[in-house]
Amino acid sequence: MDMLDRLEQVIRDRRQGDPATSYVAKLTARGRAKIAQKVGEEATETVIAAIRDDRAELTGEAADLIFHLLVLLADAGVTLDEVRAELARREGVSGIDEKAARPRA
Amino acid sequence: MDMLDRLEQVIRDRRQGDPATSYVAKLTARGRAKIAQKVGEEATETVIAAIRDDRAELTGEAADLIFHLLVLLADAGVTLDEVRAELARREGVSGIDEKAARPRA
Amino acid sequence: MDMLDRLEQVIRDRRQGDPATSYVAKLTARGRAKIAQKVGEEATETVIAAIRDDRAELTGEAADLIFHLLVLLADAGVTLDEVRAELARREGVSGIDEKAARPRA
Amino acid sequence: MDMLDRLEQVIRDRRQGDPATSYVAKLTARGRAKIAQKVGEEATETVIAAIRDDRAELTGEAADLIFHLLVLLADAGVTLDEVRAELARREGVSGIDEKAARPRA
Repeated sequence: MDMLDRLEQVIRDRRQGDPATSYVAKLTARGRAKIAQKVGEEATETVIAAIRDDRAELTGEAADLIFHLLVLLADAGVTLDEVRAELARREGVSGIDEKAARPRA
Repeated sequence: MDMLDRLEQVIRDRRQGDPATSYVAKLTARGRAKIAQKVGEEATETVIAAIRDDRAELTGEAADLIFHLLVLLADAGVTLDEVRAELARREGVSGIDEKAARPRA
Repeated sequence: MDMLDRLEQVIRDRRQGDPATSYVAKLTARGRAKIAQKVGEEATETVIAAIRDDRAELTGEAADLIFHLLVLLADAGVTLDEVRAELARREGVSGIDEKAARPRA
Repeated sequence: MDMLDRLEQVIRDRRQGDPATSYVAKLTARGRAKIAQKVGEEATETVIAAIRDDRAELTGEAADLIFHLLVLLADAGVTLDEVRAELARREGVSGIDEKAARPRA
């Protein structure tokens, strides 16, 4: 199982946790708009790190962006596998045959 | 190999391609700022889809966001595995032992 | 009358115009989400110009951001004067007495 | 003098102030990237308020966005009048003659 799927599972478990001790539970309790706001913030920080060409900062901000995107997807009941399927459909990259057609890429 | 790693590989290959036929090559040729701009745009669209609670739109926008984030990371020479390692370090989610400590989540 | 108030008035007039010849009418016809998306895009471009320290680009992107913010406010029926009143209330800057208390600034 | 010009002046004065008591001085001391990040955050919040169709929230977030945009412009040495001039040039809206040509609007 990919590490991102484990993280998705951890996030789903923690949503039910105690907001006093779990960041995911606390953020989830604040509502969809607050989670979406965090995705916007982390995207801005990712953009800034990329323009500054700071590799370490970019790695950290990309991690934050993916983390909060997973929290947002979990809140909306969308799975990472559904996003993968959409990417595979658009980019023609399957999990089995990398020589598949690639309409956009 | 995870589908996202295949997509990362496709993106790396296509960066060297013909901008006339490859979207990745064309976007890459426009420079880091244009790629970063696309990440910001897709993040905004993801936020809007989440607030509108449109599952299909959110799935598509999240796919676009991840796709352009991978293009940006490739441009900066950062691998998805480096981002995974950072996520594992922060969230305590390893690829082997899901019972590892989870500082933040 | 401040130039920004004239621009606000022009935008309000053009909303009723022909989408085939007016950018404001065309964008408005695409709906609130598309207008909001443009505000997000112009904000990202403003951020990038500021980080690149490109004064001319920053001036142009800030102009685009304010323009689309005015289109968004018009779509929601919020006036620039209402935003000014909120700024005055928060920052303690009135239009008459610049020595007023300034809680935050 | 327009209230926004007074606010611009207050921000320029406060940049030189004590970071312990002035928000503008404190944010400025954190550097260009942090100011730009705030512009990105407030834009995201403005987008969310607009999609939720919450007039009061939108008024407040638009005020926050303009405030932080003025802090960013001040940091880059760009004046609000320069942005107005760019808007007038693009939109054909002068401060004197509202019947001027309007290329885009």
